[in-house]
Amino acid sequence: MSIVTCDLSVSVDGYVAGPHQSVENPIGEGGMALHQWHFGAEGADAAIVEEWQTGVGAYIMGRHMFGPDRGEWDLDWTGWWGDEPPYGVPVFVLGHRPRPSIQVGQTTFLFVTEGIAAALVEARAAAGEQRVAIAGGASTANQYLAAGLVDQLHLHIAPIVLGGPGERLFDGVPRTDLEPVQVVASPGVTHVKYALVRP
Amino acid sequence: MSIVTCDLSVSVDGYVAGPHQSVENPIGEGGMALHQWHFGAEGADAAIVEEWQTGVGAYIMGRHMFGPDRGEWDLDWTGWWGDEPPYGVPVFVLGHRPRPSIQVGQTTFLFVTEGIAAALVEARAAAGEQRVAIAGGASTANQYLAAGLVDQLHLHIAPIVLGGPGERLFDGVPRTDLEPVQVVASPGVTHVKYALVRP
Repeated sequence: MSIVTCDLSVSVDGYVAGPHQSVENPIGEGGMALHQWHFGAEGADAAIVEEWQTGVGAYIMGRHMFGPDRGEWDLDWTGWWGDEPPYGVPVFVLGHRPRPSIQVGQTTFLFVTEGIAAALVEARAAAGEQRVAIAGGASTANQYLAAGLVDQLHLHIAPIVLGGPGERLFDGVPRTDLEPVQVVASPGVTHVKYALVRP
Repeated sequence: MSIVTCDLSVSVDGYVAGPHQSVENPIGEGGMALHQWHFGAEGADAAIVEEWQTGVGAYIMGRHMFGPDRGEWDLDWTGWWGDEPPYGVPVFVLGHRPRPSIQVGQTTFLFVTEGIAAALVEARAAAGEQRVAIAGGASTANQYLAAGLVDQLHLHIAPIVLGGPGERLFDGVPRTDLEPVQVVASPGVTHVKYALVRP
């Protein structure tokens, strides 16, 4: 069965986005600082980016990562990524309201209303032998972590304190043992890959 | 002038102690897991422990790190560390109520009621050319970080999610840029030393 991985760029204080997210500022104030490391990444960072994107058979993301709309779907909105989203495999979007799947470039977005476990079953079926990647945001990652459904957590820790408000990685996640399996240090980011230890 | 450093063992979710701290369980439930790495440390970890304790001319700590009593001082309490505390230099304890300084083994504890800046002035005077180390806990570290008074933050990240309740490192600290200056990876802990970037 495919493994479930979660790659997240986080601040040292555990935020995956800056405060005050908006349509104009989807990653929140200062949030771009978390992602700076993978633009024009070279050397070890480039290898990490490559690994991050390789071998993924399906993604799962929270609704807020797909779009800014709330309540009823805005059917004209097809994601933050324009005509060619950087996924290229099925992306399962969690939500409470049904919506027909859409194809955008090489990526199909499918909307799941039956919760995180159901989404994982669908994503595993789509992924085959490849891995299922939890794309974010923090709330979605925390739900999968709290449910013990993540096998590997790869944190890309940007050297910045962002401050709140916002959802933090690990909020609501109960005591969990991890095992660091790889640490890569760059001037602009510290990559720590953890395996989740099963109780 | 001496620099101000802060070494803290933290969980991946940013806690320096487990939930439900008590006299019987001063580091909280599960909190010992944060410190496991420096008992019997070898190799790179031993070098980190050595560095942590070397060149410190004075420590500053919060009252809760000195003892479990609240309100009026329990003058029979002389700290968690028995007859020979592991400091050996002046330790400035923050509090709201005056108390005469006490000598325990090679360590003098001095009680400061005028706030963090006043404590730092006294600690610098005591430290001379050596560094002033902020010993913790989270609340004390956060106050010094928020005030921009820390030069170097050395995190020893234990591979465990502790969960709340409790005070987290960086709570109340506004946006701050850091620069990773040293990363050391061990099987049981990831050491990341940050320099604080002055605005």
